[in-house]
Amino acid sequence: MELEATAIDIGTSRPLVLLNTTDADELGAHPLDRVRIRWNGETVTGIVKRTDELVEPGTVGVTEPLHAVHGAVDVKLAGTPRSVRYVRKKLDDVELEPHELGRIVQDIHEHRLSDVELGAYVSGIYANGLSLEETKHLTEAMSAVGQQLSWDAPVVADKHSIGGIAGNCVTPIMVAIVAAAGLTMPKTSSRAVTSPAGTADVMEVLCDVEFSLAEIEEIVTETNGCLVWGGGVDLSPVDDEIIRAENPLSIDPPGQLMASVLSKKRSAGSTHVVIDVPYGEGAKVESLVAARELADDFKRVGDHLEMDVCCAITHGTDPIGRGVGPALEARDVLAVLEGDEDAPESLRLKSLRLSELLLEHCGVDASAAEILESGKALERFRDIVAAQGGDPGVCADDLEPGAHSTTIRADRTGLASRVDNRQLCDLARRAGAPLDSRAGLVIHQTATNAVEVGDPLYTIHAETQSKLEEAEALADRLEPIRVRSKADALVERR
Amino acid sequence: MELEATAIDIGTSRPLVLLNTTDADELGAHPLDRVRIRWNGETVTGIVKRTDELVEPGTVGVTEPLHAVHGAVDVKLAGTPRSVRYVRKKLDDVELEPHELGRIVQDIHEHRLSDVELGAYVSGIYANGLSLEETKHLTEAMSAVGQQLSWDAPVVADKHSIGGIAGNCVTPIMVAIVAAAGLTMPKTSSRAVTSPAGTADVMEVLCDVEFSLAEIEEIVTETNGCLVWGGGVDLSPVDDEIIRAENPLSIDPPGQLMASVLSKKRSAGSTHVVIDVPYGEGAKVESLVAARELADDFKRVGDHLEMDVCCAITHGTDPIGRGVGPALEARDVLAVLEGDEDAPESLRLKSLRLSELLLEHCGVDASAAEILESGKALERFRDIVAAQGGDPGVCADDLEPGAHSTTIRADRTGLASRVDNRQLCDLARRAGAPLDSRAGLVIHQTATNAVEVGDPLYTIHAETQSKLEEAEALADRLEPIRVRSKADALVERR
Repeated sequence: MELEATAIDIGTSRPLVLLNTTDADELGAHPLDRVRIRWNGETVTGIVKRTDELVEPGTVGVTEPLHAVHGAVDVKLAGTPRSVRYVRKKLDDVELEPHELGRIVQDIHEHRLSDVELGAYVSGIYANGLSLEETKHLTEAMSAVGQQLSWDAPVVADKHSIGGIAGNCVTPIMVAIVAAAGLTMPKTSSRAVTSPAGTADVMEVLCDVEFSLAEIEEIVTETNGCLVWGGGVDLSPVDDEIIRAENPLSIDPPGQLMASVLSKKRSAGSTHVVIDVPYGEGAKVESLVAARELADDFKRVGDHLEMDVCCAITHGTDPIGRGVGPALEARDVLAVLEGDEDAPESLRLKSLRLSELLLEHCGVDASAAEILESGKALERFRDIVAAQGGDPGVCADDLEPGAHSTTIRADRTGLASRVDNRQLCDLARRAGAPLDSRAGLVIHQTATNAVEVGDPLYTIHAETQSKLEEAEALADRLEPIRVRSKADALVERR
Repeated sequence: MELEATAIDIGTSRPLVLLNTTDADELGAHPLDRVRIRWNGETVTGIVKRTDELVEPGTVGVTEPLHAVHGAVDVKLAGTPRSVRYVRKKLDDVELEPHELGRIVQDIHEHRLSDVELGAYVSGIYANGLSLEETKHLTEAMSAVGQQLSWDAPVVADKHSIGGIAGNCVTPIMVAIVAAAGLTMPKTSSRAVTSPAGTADVMEVLCDVEFSLAEIEEIVTETNGCLVWGGGVDLSPVDDEIIRAENPLSIDPPGQLMASVLSKKRSAGSTHVVIDVPYGEGAKVESLVAARELADDFKRVGDHLEMDVCCAITHGTDPIGRGVGPALEARDVLAVLEGDEDAPESLRLKSLRLSELLLEHCGVDASAAEILESGKALERFRDIVAAQGGDPGVCADDLEPGAHSTTIRADRTGLASRVDNRQLCDLARRAGAPLDSRAGLVIHQTATNAVEVGDPLYTIHAETQSKLEEAEALADRLEPIRVRSKADALVERR
């Protein structure tokens, strides 16, 4: 069908083709069908949206990814992308071939799948799982569509923490220690999606985090390490699309998780990786058995990819560190590096243990504790901050939390029996984190602490009074730190 | 967050809320998150779309279902609808409770699920199936959100054919026979979605098919039957939404299929139903075993619903009738009713057998053959056409196929060994059906016919020369009727 193409903005980054209902009927094009547009000898494909209002009969509207298309064009009904057949195959619980996984990744990368199809993809992976072979091939495919970093060093160190734990900002401390020990550790991190702070948000309190590949190579050459935002370089670009579909469903199937994590490590040129797998009630991984299984699978997929993967199963019930929110976590990080005796011990110990593991895993004979205590780690961290355009003189005490605050106190004497990471994260977000970088929580109790009536449980910080009030209202309804008196034999009555 | 609401049209019938990226970040609202809008003491929920262009900061755009919202409003992040948790439960292969299925149906009905979530719903049903209990409750829930018809007659007859077979327009003949036998048969049918003609499209060649509930009751009171479009009355309104998600994935899980079919029958007030289950290579149901299983399940779900269901397993490899496309099928229907000796025998015999079955199933002692041969069925059909505003004098010969035509002939002597329903449907659609009502195919051979070189295989009819050429081009690439010479021992070499 001959139509006149015109650019249109309907607030989407997907390649949509808007047809007037009359033309769509004439073409036999239903919602979510695809059409092929030929113009100027080129061909593009887009997903059909039918409208009575936005385009006139005889006209075809194209959204941003197709804005090059204009003038007289030929529009034809196109088939479904082949990858949809492979998505159905996964729903049928049939193992996918490497080329089939590659085609799915390519089509997601090119935004060729509709939301319904993307929902079916993550559902299929969730319902029927991925074999180790499939996970390996998916990892390779996800890495292949991304940008690549490469290094001269034979050993390149890396780490990843499975999310869901409040605080847990071990990464900057680990990079400082490992880089000070002479290893290359080009760390890319994420910003918060549903949490109050990603490592990139924390680092952004201190310095820039968005750099090009060339700039990252420069920073790492100068300091052995970096702490940058992964989204600035597309190491595994389909990951964001997949997460966009997983989030509303609250699913994160292990095979996909491993492929997402390891594809980024592969693209970053990492050779030796430590995976931190926190487990416990409320964490992403709920039992020790499941944590062991995931850890073993991570190692097996790593073997397939010729990447040395080792896993640390850690406690996932309590928050790590005291602060929750970008500036509050950055303050904890600096306090640990500065050797401040009030620095949160849980953050110091976990960072040290993971660093020791990573150094040993990389075959480096160095003491993480010695590097931290001697101040070498702090020095190296300041070099990295400086290389990333920040102030190398920054101290923990310089970082003021949001000025509006409330402290929630225990209303009974007993034991802090349960700390709910999700509720803490929700509260910190309600207070304004991560966008208000100084908003968040300071946690005063961890599980099994003995608590007296009136003892502080946690403090909410916000940058504005209205956000503080919103967080207080939420705090009234939640009980992120539960205090159990000795008389409480029941957990709950329902 | 206080914002100014404004109506916006981005070509969607879903309740979307467009936020400027700045406001969305401030709110912490990601794509596909939901927000709750309070205005004038009322509250509505919509799905977030982030945009840099379409709405200014401080403004919120709402799409058509929310167009009542305007002026100063309060926008808050809202949780995910509860039904998403039940969708995940189904992906976990856990049986759903009646109230959980009810909540899913209600949320789909109110367009509260995003496309990703709808994709996950149909994927979960497809991957993990529905138990008979679940199917029954889903049927009830789907029927409950729809409009209802009710009849004084103690027995109300109905039928449904599982789709995918070209031609197969038995319904008008069956309604004519059964209504002439004195039974009530208020038949609602669909228009084509991916086929070249639904029964409603065929009937529309002869009379109106869109009527209100009250009009339908009037037509049925007058003639015992009707042949109307089901989309004009919302007997099971979520069915269209579910089909919209199933189609791009080419899935049609049995439990969902049964719930969709039977919920409409239930809302139509039907008590005795015959289900036509064609099976064979290329049909929706591919094997006799699968057809029997589906038939037994249909009966069991019917029992649960206190509906008398009986199934006819039929041949699904060959087209039924000769015409494919609205007018060409209407011509076959009239030819059978008129007793024309050239009428397609396959259509006549199948309509008769199914009518006999339905009459017997309803406990009526009447001969379908006698009603057809005596002309009583034709007379009753004309009454229905007249009641639906058509010309009761219409004859098969009045219906001219599209004037532009080509006949495809055998290029070898042998046996018509395989007729591909899907290819025939694709060809008829390419020629313009169903929108061009006189476009489509006339099929001259069926499987196992002996064919000489030059014998006609099928004729393509189109209303315009350009459509004919498009269909011819497609015919060059397909082989919907394959002729096998005796020397062909191989089916295919790959």
